[in-house]
Amino acid sequence: MAEAKKLTGAGLRGQSAGETALCTVGQSGAGLTYRGYDIKALADHAEFEEVAYLLLYGKLPNQAELNAYKAKLKSLRQLPSALKTVLENIPADAHPMDVMRTGCSMLGNLETEHDFSEQHEKIDRMLAVFPGLINYWYNYSHHGKRINVETEADSIGEQFLWTLHDKKPEQLHIDVMHASLILYAEHEFNASTFTARVCASTLSDIHSCITAAIGSLRGPLHGGANEAAMDMIEQWSDADEAEDAIMGMLSRKDKIMGFGHAIYRDSDPRNSIIKAWSKKLSEQVGDTSLYAVSERVESVMWREKKLFCNADFFHASAYHFMGIPTKLFTPIFVCSRASGWAAHVMEQRANNRIIRPSADYTGPDSSEWVPIAERS
Amino acid sequence: MAEAKKLTGAGLRGQSAGETALCTVGQSGAGLTYRGYDIKALADHAEFEEVAYLLLYGKLPNQAELNAYKAKLKSLRQLPSALKTVLENIPADAHPMDVMRTGCSMLGNLETEHDFSEQHEKIDRMLAVFPGLINYWYNYSHHGKRINVETEADSIGEQFLWTLHDKKPEQLHIDVMHASLILYAEHEFNASTFTARVCASTLSDIHSCITAAIGSLRGPLHGGANEAAMDMIEQWSDADEAEDAIMGMLSRKDKIMGFGHAIYRDSDPRNSIIKAWSKKLSEQVGDTSLYAVSERVESVMWREKKLFCNADFFHASAYHFMGIPTKLFTPIFVCSRASGWAAHVMEQRANNRIIRPSADYTGPDSSEWVPIAERS
Repeated sequence: MAEAKKLTGAGLRGQSAGETALCTVGQSGAGLTYRGYDIKALADHAEFEEVAYLLLYGKLPNQAELNAYKAKLKSLRQLPSALKTVLENIPADAHPMDVMRTGCSMLGNLETEHDFSEQHEKIDRMLAVFPGLINYWYNYSHHGKRINVETEADSIGEQFLWTLHDKKPEQLHIDVMHASLILYAEHEFNASTFTARVCASTLSDIHSCITAAIGSLRGPLHGGANEAAMDMIEQWSDADEAEDAIMGMLSRKDKIMGFGHAIYRDSDPRNSIIKAWSKKLSEQVGDTSLYAVSERVESVMWREKKLFCNADFFHASAYHFMGIPTKLFTPIFVCSRASGWAAHVMEQRANNRIIRPSADYTGPDSSEWVPIAERS
Repeated sequence: MAEAKKLTGAGLRGQSAGETALCTVGQSGAGLTYRGYDIKALADHAEFEEVAYLLLYGKLPNQAELNAYKAKLKSLRQLPSALKTVLENIPADAHPMDVMRTGCSMLGNLETEHDFSEQHEKIDRMLAVFPGLINYWYNYSHHGKRINVETEADSIGEQFLWTLHDKKPEQLHIDVMHASLILYAEHEFNASTFTARVCASTLSDIHSCITAAIGSLRGPLHGGANEAAMDMIEQWSDADEAEDAIMGMLSRKDKIMGFGHAIYRDSDPRNSIIKAWSKKLSEQVGDTSLYAVSERVESVMWREKKLFCNADFFHASAYHFMGIPTKLFTPIFVCSRASGWAAHVMEQRANNRIIRPSADYTGPDSSEWVPIAERS
């Protein structure tokens, strides 16, 4: 079982920056838990909306609560016309995470959180609107098409696929999206979540917190790993070619994305779950190379470096099999992690002190003012 | 002289979260220094652009460098038409910091930083564009007027006043803006700067970092103090009324904004500087109450609580005397602090490890999965 690495030093690694009741990562060999529930139980049995409810409202919903919650989310999907105008003014070559960040920020102008008593309403609205937001921009900028985002989709995952392809998705894909969104929903004090909490600690509004977190997740050291893995594996047409290429990359010490983790030591508990879904999708689409390539890369990385796949690696092939463009992988992460970010913001607000660390000063002791005419 | 408080505990207070050569706050009695230069020397002698150059390029510019830098900033003021469209779609009742956040984020879609080699260009562009950005929205949404942001203003402070009032400002006001922007430019690992650094540590782009920082500065525990101070002091018509009201607030333990500081213990070295400018402005406009009210509040707070004015308190009256609407006070802070944020982002990038702290877990040890039909 995975256990937490003990680390100290830069990047606040191993230093506690606060308390949370939401998540354990790699603690006591337990892998990953959300409010004490093992990630495997959640991913095997729950819908994403159950998990979002668990994170945001503190308990697993009963059937009536889940039905009401899903109905509420479904009713909150429309895009305000000013937001559509903003999305239509963002070019096709923009970074999709910049679109998410701007869309979330714009929503905050139109539907501002004036008081923390509104936090649940604003959060549910964001969860409901994000899939349609990114796909409205994508379809408009790439295909000149203004899609209808008020679909009949039953869930956030289905809504993502429906608004992306502008048609009802098949059941297998909906099931995969539930599992995927559950796996990405929450991960303790990772950099984007910590960004949201630092922002929340000034008692700023929820749109500022989520906008800030999106900006952090955009960084290649954080959210971009499944996209980078996809860019890598789609270069190779079979497993032998992949093995040769990986061996070459290892000998050149190239960075190989989708492997290892800052906290997990022996394995990422999310990998086996998304890997099983990727296999199922591979069989469904009649894939003869991408899944085999992925498996070979996994085994070579373990054999050569004892490096294990993290959550991102088999997400690449799984998303690809569902016809999702690589550039939209990280925005899906946003559609999911927004639930965890928001739960952390609420937790920070409930027991807040402004997060204001110190720094070790490395600059000059004292600099003497020199009038501009005398400067070199 | 001010010395740093020694604190531990929540909010990472007193814990080092990294290194910086940019700034000392309350260290060794030195008050506040930017790259070793005392804040008083900078505020008394420099233009804001000299200080921005110092923070961003590592040295005080000579006259030729300063001229070139100011000419460059002047050439970068135009708003892209897509950004104007976004600003025109933000309603008048939006929070001005939401406008700044969204404007900065939108700029990132239109002029994306593709590589860190572009960082100086993107930062200079933001510094040049921010004053016109907020005032374009303000004048359009409040007065239905599309202002010209490509003015002849010689500096960022003058550009702010010119685009706000749509006319050339007088020299005294330009001088005050230089001092004010210098005082607000940089302050070590405050919450918004730390937000920018956490975001930067994922190697995200500069617009994500600055957008995130704007969101943090928006919080009432951080950037809103001068606005809150203004809302308070403008209620009182003379000093005696102010004293009575403050005594009442103290007895009710109301929060009084603009006093005390998380780091400074005995005084805020920025206060005497902006206070002197506020006095000069008060005389210029023939004010007979606001400055006197402010001074009385200062003396009562010291007499009763040994609490000193921080940088924000006399900023309220100073900005007010220049005809700046209260709601635009914090956006001016952005126009200034963007220089410090950006310098920190560059510093983080130059010696980076992803900022990923741990958390103390306070949730359930283990929760057993219950099928939905069996849940209460």
